[in-house]
Amino acid sequence: MNVSIADFLERLSSDAPTPGGGSVAALVGALSSSLTSMVGSLTYGKKKYEEHWDEAKRIVEEAKTLNEDFLSLFYEDIEAFTKLMATFGLPRNAEEEKQKRDEAIQKATKAAIEVPLNVMEKSQRAAELALTVAKIGNLNAISDAGIAGEMALAAARSASFNVLINLNFLKDPDYSSTVVRKHYEILNRVKTLREEVYTLVLKKIKK
Amino acid sequence: MNVSIADFLERLSSDAPTPGGGSVAALVGALSSSLTSMVGSLTYGKKKYEEHWDEAKRIVEEAKTLNEDFLSLFYEDIEAFTKLMATFGLPRNAEEEKQKRDEAIQKATKAAIEVPLNVMEKSQRAAELALTVAKIGNLNAISDAGIAGEMALAAARSASFNVLINLNFLKDPDYSSTVVRKHYEILNRVKTLREEVYTLVLKKIKK
Repeated sequence: MNVSIADFLERLSSDAPTPGGGSVAALVGALSSSLTSMVGSLTYGKKKYEEHWDEAKRIVEEAKTLNEDFLSLFYEDIEAFTKLMATFGLPRNAEEEKQKRDEAIQKATKAAIEVPLNVMEKSQRAAELALTVAKIGNLNAISDAGIAGEMALAAARSASFNVLINLNFLKDPDYSSTVVRKHYEILNRVKTLREEVYTLVLKKIKK
Repeated sequence: MNVSIADFLERLSSDAPTPGGGSVAALVGALSSSLTSMVGSLTYGKKKYEEHWDEAKRIVEEAKTLNEDFLSLFYEDIEAFTKLMATFGLPRNAEEEKQKRDEAIQKATKAAIEVPLNVMEKSQRAAELALTVAKIGNLNAISDAGIAGEMALAAARSASFNVLINLNFLKDPDYSSTVVRKHYEILNRVKTLREEVYTLVLKKIKK
């Protein structure tokens, strides 16, 4: 993440194979946990919110870990995609080559599914933390808690596309159906959490 | 946007007054237009999509302009917020000071509403472009078109919180009701567009 935002956007805009939507999902997850950390930081130490200091401190710490997880997943997505693309280029003249290529594709595909699935799991946690800071956080930063909720859902939904598109290459029905089920469970959970955050933040903004 | 992604996230996580959720909204809008530009770039020049080259080229050009707009809004949000915060610090001892301070707050608040409202308008355009590339774009990058749709909605919803929270400081009922109405119109439109993108992309992924 030493790349500048402008350079990242420039490269994302181009027809270069990476970064792509998978990295965007992880980045947006990091935006969620960063905003949650910000709201927690603006709550901890403020007299008015003294009863919530312990929880705010705990949230800031967990959000920072989550941030690091998302940053790792940002790079892991690029790596998994690059490896998967490389397997498609493997030779397939002899029968043995074909089989080796198929096995390599299957292995690389599973990795390319695990990364966005992991982004989804972390997004669920990000959404839970966003809801907690929406409940206890500094009212001056309550819109930021709301935006943390939006980012968590956007990250989960974005990663979901990559889970589903990569499942197309996979020839393992048991694995696939487990992943699809788990992935929809997370998606529904994050959607519900985001709605709770939205409703709560809107109520606090309008009073 | 010469700041690195890591430094941006670090500063966002902290209790520093800027950047905040408003800049995040603009950044996420730029992620949408960048992904749309990517899908357009992967469509233009590819034999299979020859009938869509003209449109793909047009989309890439508009998405790049949109990207620049979002980047400007990223900075404008920081500036508007900083100016607004400064007005709250103006002296209010004498009656004349109070009045001057009030006027300055009202003026700065309008600016702090116009920026996220502008982000919402640009997000609507970003969602429209995402839908077009979801229709005509390279199937290998169809998940990226889907993610562009998610980013457009996340940007609009995030900016919406900032429009609403800043309206609380405004003492101009006519202006407020016009903004609220316009803002909900955009929000509903972007939500519908995102649903269209999602449904279309999912259908294309699954076949």
